[in-house]
Amino acid sequence: MDYLLEFCYDGSEYKGYATQLHKNTIQDILQQTISKVFKQEIKITGASRTDTGVHAMYQCATFSADLFIEYNRVTIALNSILPKSIRIINCKKPKPDFHPRYSCTSKQYIYKINLDYDVFKTRYSHYHKYDLDVELMNEACAYFIGRHDFSSCCASGGSVVDKVRTIYNLDVTLIDREIIISVTGDGFLYNMVRIIVGNLLAVGEKKINPSYIKSIIDSCDRSNSFPTAAACGLYLKEINYRS
Amino acid sequence: MDYLLEFCYDGSEYKGYATQLHKNTIQDILQQTISKVFKQEIKITGASRTDTGVHAMYQCATFSADLFIEYNRVTIALNSILPKSIRIINCKKPKPDFHPRYSCTSKQYIYKINLDYDVFKTRYSHYHKYDLDVELMNEACAYFIGRHDFSSCCASGGSVVDKVRTIYNLDVTLIDREIIISVTGDGFLYNMVRIIVGNLLAVGEKKINPSYIKSIIDSCDRSNSFPTAAACGLYLKEINYRS
Repeated sequence: MDYLLEFCYDGSEYKGYATQLHKNTIQDILQQTISKVFKQEIKITGASRTDTGVHAMYQCATFSADLFIEYNRVTIALNSILPKSIRIINCKKPKPDFHPRYSCTSKQYIYKINLDYDVFKTRYSHYHKYDLDVELMNEACAYFIGRHDFSSCCASGGSVVDKVRTIYNLDVTLIDREIIISVTGDGFLYNMVRIIVGNLLAVGEKKINPSYIKSIIDSCDRSNSFPTAAACGLYLKEINYRS
Repeated sequence: MDYLLEFCYDGSEYKGYATQLHKNTIQDILQQTISKVFKQEIKITGASRTDTGVHAMYQCATFSADLFIEYNRVTIALNSILPKSIRIINCKKPKPDFHPRYSCTSKQYIYKINLDYDVFKTRYSHYHKYDLDVELMNEACAYFIGRHDFSSCCASGGSVVDKVRTIYNLDVTLIDREIIISVTGDGFLYNMVRIIVGNLLAVGEKKINPSYIKSIIDSCDRSNSFPTAAACGLYLKEINYRS
């Protein structure tokens, strides 16, 4: 029997999504919990890796089990034993040939920045000490949009060779001293969103002009980008699939 | 030199406000940090105890030190070394004869309840599975308002003998599936706000009629009250002083 799980999580206290030896990851917790419910060892295939401290408003994974449990009951059973910080939104039968990674057409991330310090938001938003020029940041966004080699926005350590990705949308909005950066693309390299945010912060602080972003991207060199923004502000928000 | 510190904290990871042997409390963390800055051992006198997991949007404390450090610099120095979850709002010279507890005329607490589960709010709001009738809850509030013996809303274990307190205001509002209970009074007994909330939840769930609250209060017996509501929803919001 095949199952598609849709879920969300507060990533603050986990070592990211993907399973690691002796590490407290979302995938490990989910696998342990599903294995308990299905009384057999279950491995899941997730849609997207997220780093330590990064959150997901939406994420999904598939798994197979010998046993059939009614989908709605799977949701209830898992939620009753999962930690508070991980929540199953839905469980259903996946469409034939559905694959959480390969069937994906685009993903959306958002990044939250607080311009005022708030003790109740330190886990869920990046506090930025200096005011940011949102208009300049939006000008800079235009240079990221489109199909580019994003080597300049990729952390070292990954095994990915082809670093060409397409960003469909990137914008910055300011509401009540909170900035939301939203980005949608066909795929993202290791730390790519947080490095893009780091560059946008440099523009917002007027360290560089918006047009300087073009030369950062063209250089295809990570060392020309600004530092990676903090993990706590980042949320995987949506994953879109071929219908 | 006398100092008045105003601060706020996310209480999720602390064993309450008041110092305890070998315990991770707000008072302990503040005393250690202030002692470091003033290079002498400092004891502080806080306005209000809060329990494990309870938050404060506003709290204050006084202390004396041999050294004079300009008030604004105290704020900056403390915030630079305090954990993210505790933040100094302001440091100033207290008025003559000011005492954080004895000069207080009233305090306001709020209690947050979420009717929809949200992984990003589990530390900051109580998730309530069942819908609540806010109109009935507000009817029930009327019975708590005024001067009463609140023995029925006081956890055992305290040393306080006089359990008469005055509640000036108590109301319940619902905005976007979030309920906020606000209560202002001249003082509160051990767990009093959370026990009042527990009783209001019973009314909201229609386990009891609003008017039944009168008999709970009149009984002066804790065992007639409903269970204490969870700590995570509670915030000390304001402390008012004689001007």
